[in-house]
Amino acid sequence: MRNALQIAFLGGIDEIGKNMTCLVYNDDILVVDCGMSFPNEEMPGVDVVIPDITFLKQNQSKVRGIILTHGHEDHIGAVPYILKQLNVPVFGTRLTLMLLDNKLREHRLDNVRLNCIKEGGRLQLGCFQIEALKVSHSIAGALAFAITTPVGVVFFSGDFKIDYTPVDGQLMDFARFAEIGKRGVQLLLMESTNVERKGYTMSERTVGASLDRIFGENPEQRLIVATFASNVHRLQQIIDIAKKYGRKVCFSGRSMINVADAATRIGELKLDPSQVVDVERINRVPDKNLVILSTGSQGEPMSALTRMASGDFNKVHINKNDTIVISASPIPGNEKMVYRVINNLTSLGAKVIYAALAEVHVSGHACQEELKLMHSLLKPRYFIPVHGESRHLIFHKELAKELGMREENIFIPSLGACFELDKRGLKKVNPVPAGSLLVDGLGVGDVGSVVLRDRRHLAEDGMIVLVFGIDEESGQITSGPDVISRGFSSSKESEAFIERAKEVALSSLARYDLKNAGIHDEAKKAICRDVKNYLYKKTKRSPMILPIFVD
Amino acid sequence: MRNALQIAFLGGIDEIGKNMTCLVYNDDILVVDCGMSFPNEEMPGVDVVIPDITFLKQNQSKVRGIILTHGHEDHIGAVPYILKQLNVPVFGTRLTLMLLDNKLREHRLDNVRLNCIKEGGRLQLGCFQIEALKVSHSIAGALAFAITTPVGVVFFSGDFKIDYTPVDGQLMDFARFAEIGKRGVQLLLMESTNVERKGYTMSERTVGASLDRIFGENPEQRLIVATFASNVHRLQQIIDIAKKYGRKVCFSGRSMINVADAATRIGELKLDPSQVVDVERINRVPDKNLVILSTGSQGEPMSALTRMASGDFNKVHINKNDTIVISASPIPGNEKMVYRVINNLTSLGAKVIYAALAEVHVSGHACQEELKLMHSLLKPRYFIPVHGESRHLIFHKELAKELGMREENIFIPSLGACFELDKRGLKKVNPVPAGSLLVDGLGVGDVGSVVLRDRRHLAEDGMIVLVFGIDEESGQITSGPDVISRGFSSSKESEAFIERAKEVALSSLARYDLKNAGIHDEAKKAICRDVKNYLYKKTKRSPMILPIFVD
Repeated sequence: MRNALQIAFLGGIDEIGKNMTCLVYNDDILVVDCGMSFPNEEMPGVDVVIPDITFLKQNQSKVRGIILTHGHEDHIGAVPYILKQLNVPVFGTRLTLMLLDNKLREHRLDNVRLNCIKEGGRLQLGCFQIEALKVSHSIAGALAFAITTPVGVVFFSGDFKIDYTPVDGQLMDFARFAEIGKRGVQLLLMESTNVERKGYTMSERTVGASLDRIFGENPEQRLIVATFASNVHRLQQIIDIAKKYGRKVCFSGRSMINVADAATRIGELKLDPSQVVDVERINRVPDKNLVILSTGSQGEPMSALTRMASGDFNKVHINKNDTIVISASPIPGNEKMVYRVINNLTSLGAKVIYAALAEVHVSGHACQEELKLMHSLLKPRYFIPVHGESRHLIFHKELAKELGMREENIFIPSLGACFELDKRGLKKVNPVPAGSLLVDGLGVGDVGSVVLRDRRHLAEDGMIVLVFGIDEESGQITSGPDVISRGFSSSKESEAFIERAKEVALSSLARYDLKNAGIHDEAKKAICRDVKNYLYKKTKRSPMILPIFVD
Repeated sequence: MRNALQIAFLGGIDEIGKNMTCLVYNDDILVVDCGMSFPNEEMPGVDVVIPDITFLKQNQSKVRGIILTHGHEDHIGAVPYILKQLNVPVFGTRLTLMLLDNKLREHRLDNVRLNCIKEGGRLQLGCFQIEALKVSHSIAGALAFAITTPVGVVFFSGDFKIDYTPVDGQLMDFARFAEIGKRGVQLLLMESTNVERKGYTMSERTVGASLDRIFGENPEQRLIVATFASNVHRLQQIIDIAKKYGRKVCFSGRSMINVADAATRIGELKLDPSQVVDVERINRVPDKNLVILSTGSQGEPMSALTRMASGDFNKVHINKNDTIVISASPIPGNEKMVYRVINNLTSLGAKVIYAALAEVHVSGHACQEELKLMHSLLKPRYFIPVHGESRHLIFHKELAKELGMREENIFIPSLGACFELDKRGLKKVNPVPAGSLLVDGLGVGDVGSVVLRDRRHLAEDGMIVLVFGIDEESGQITSGPDVISRGFSSSKESEAFIERAKEVALSSLARYDLKNAGIHDEAKKAICRDVKNYLYKKTKRSPMILPIFVD
């Protein structure tokens, strides 16, 4: 027994200290969040990226549970994959569990122990006393966790912003944050997404005011609003404004329909069933009496809005009487997709209002002044900035220093990093096993660096297969090379290069006595090298070369 | 003879009315700009995209010349490729021609007729009288063209902003713009890049003020400033500030060294040779006496700054005493690359200042109020918004309507679109041949839609080659299938799938009498279909399947 607390970072690719963090004290392990990341451009064909939980599997019997801060993909998206390897109880607020439940059903997982935590509620898991504190964020039911461990309080901010006028009227309990701070926080882990932005994030209500103005200014148009389905408070505001202006609401897109339905059932969304109209029936509703709430605010290829924009959605035809509001900002990397959708919509004659033009979106993350407030309330002894790219974490460190923290009390995490807290303080210790598993289709973890390198190579320059018939006994070339190329070139000129490449390959082979099968691999390598050099000289391209010998 | 002027749009992929426009009047053709576009994410492996000039080649003898508005890639980048097909004179300002000359030498093109135009100068090409008017932009030597044709004046704004305090002191000749407007502009083509932005673009001088402050606040640090080499006025400001603070200047990165050298030679850049230090000698200069001017402000993979950030540049080692200014904004699509560089630099301990944090960059394009000024000075009868994605063009149309233009006098262009202007007015006519040629390595136009589709397919799911030995006479399968896969999977499980896929392929083949070579293609199709279906069921992936028969 070391009687020390380890804090280990198990998730995140470009962003650090995200997706999954765990606390270890002797025989108790507590996992905070269990999310996925989206693949970066180095990972073609990959659907999602989840944490490698080798460390948890090695300590399976100690894992007391997974506690979820909120229901966004980067905090719950890996749960179905992890539960297949590790059967542990999961804890979250009602909305978080509802969103998770949708996922578990898609993965046909039943027999999962889902446990509801209330905002302000408490929970004991092993030696960990957890207090769940409501925070404002771009999703309802978001929590921070104050976790009392045998070596003191560790505070996870979760993703948060400060909203003094929240849509549901439930203000954060600032007094309780202050009280926890006053009693002493040993270690704070705080998110860093918006640490580059000065000032404050605007209240969610300001979006309502903008949308109200847009509804008022477009009384005759059909309105379409695209936003994240999980932003229930945004949906609530749109529903309420629609009611005020005598418009029915149509939910469009699978996740929008699912979330609206489930959130209404659990009471998170207040919605009069008579105000809802099915997408099959919208043609019976006059334009001025309709608002369509749609998925696709990130330009996702299969989403409702993207299909409307490209004319592939036969239930909604965009026309000149449509005013479309994209109530979201492009997530970094999605800019081109979002703008393509906007271009297509405007080309169809619609008016499109988006964040670059009007205040139709606010961030869910704290800007500098809000981060400072949280630091000032909690006054931690140690600080680990989390949930950001490395520049964000370093910037957040600078911000904490400005607030008076000492540099040596601030630690920057990395994937697999492990820190140890005991009575003497916090220090960095040896890393734990950690990594990223790539999910592609039904495969989890079978796409690794070699497969990705090949995919990138194939995408860049294509490939050329050279097939030789070789008589094993005599070592004579009996046929070929036959050549098949894909993704290389379609010109007449390149056909001539390929003909010449055959000769190059044959003269490479001529140097080898092919009776000796043990030399075949070396002969193939020679073909690859010589053909590659020849083609690069002629075309400045390096397709993948695949020589195949057939007996 | 139709005695009408045609205006045809020959270039641009995502942005419209860009890269190349031409004017045709009877036997005279004038080409305005000759630029390239960068490939979008649908075009893996492609280096650059240039206009398809079939139309110009069909009318080769009529082409009087190419006039260039300014020296950015999207306006001059295709010249070397086009001149290989079409030997015509090229006209531009001194700096434009200097930048072009660098390119022509890379392409080993001599014997090119480059002709210098002065700001304010005039030129007659065929029936076209061209007046070159200086505009402000993020490159020196930028022009608008007022082109007097037999049917009236056509005005090309080029890329521009209004800068009342230009770095070179040469104000735009607003009176001349007004005079041209007063005499009558039949048709205006104006850029639309920043039409979404309210207000004014700040003067280039404001960047100088910010940089001066950064130099003042970091007296002991080594400073590195990354910006576009072609922004000579930015370079001039940095050089002048460096002089004020007693710092030598080191140029780093091929294009920075080339441009600084050539721009100094032609007098566009005022630089005392004693202030320059070679990158090989920077270790002899104290940090506080040095500023490195570097390429890589867009995170380009091979640029100096990117290599510094990843520790691959052995001449500059980033350390805690470095303050790095990225004096540029990420071009849409480059965000992730730029932020990766910033992450790497901060991880190495450097302080990085970039546009999200401080005013270290201004746009080179006019915002709404500047566009309105230009409209108001020129008062055109017809208007074609150009140089923007389709939402920008439509937005610019709305802006022109607000200024009092009639909707029917505004036309939105597309690639290949052709408009005809005569005494009766402007109308849209049949399109001309137009398109995009993709340049990959030495190949121009040999990467087409099939090659790209294959590359994307290979990138997404990889490929599986199945090789069968088949005796032509008996139709018997003599060997195989041997299987080679790349980019598909690296798991043990997938090996089992591939074994089973071999059986699937064999049973597909069993349905065919392979003695009949005429049926081989059909048999291969059956293999593709059956193996594809099997693998999709098992993995939810669709690798490219390539069956090969060898005799």
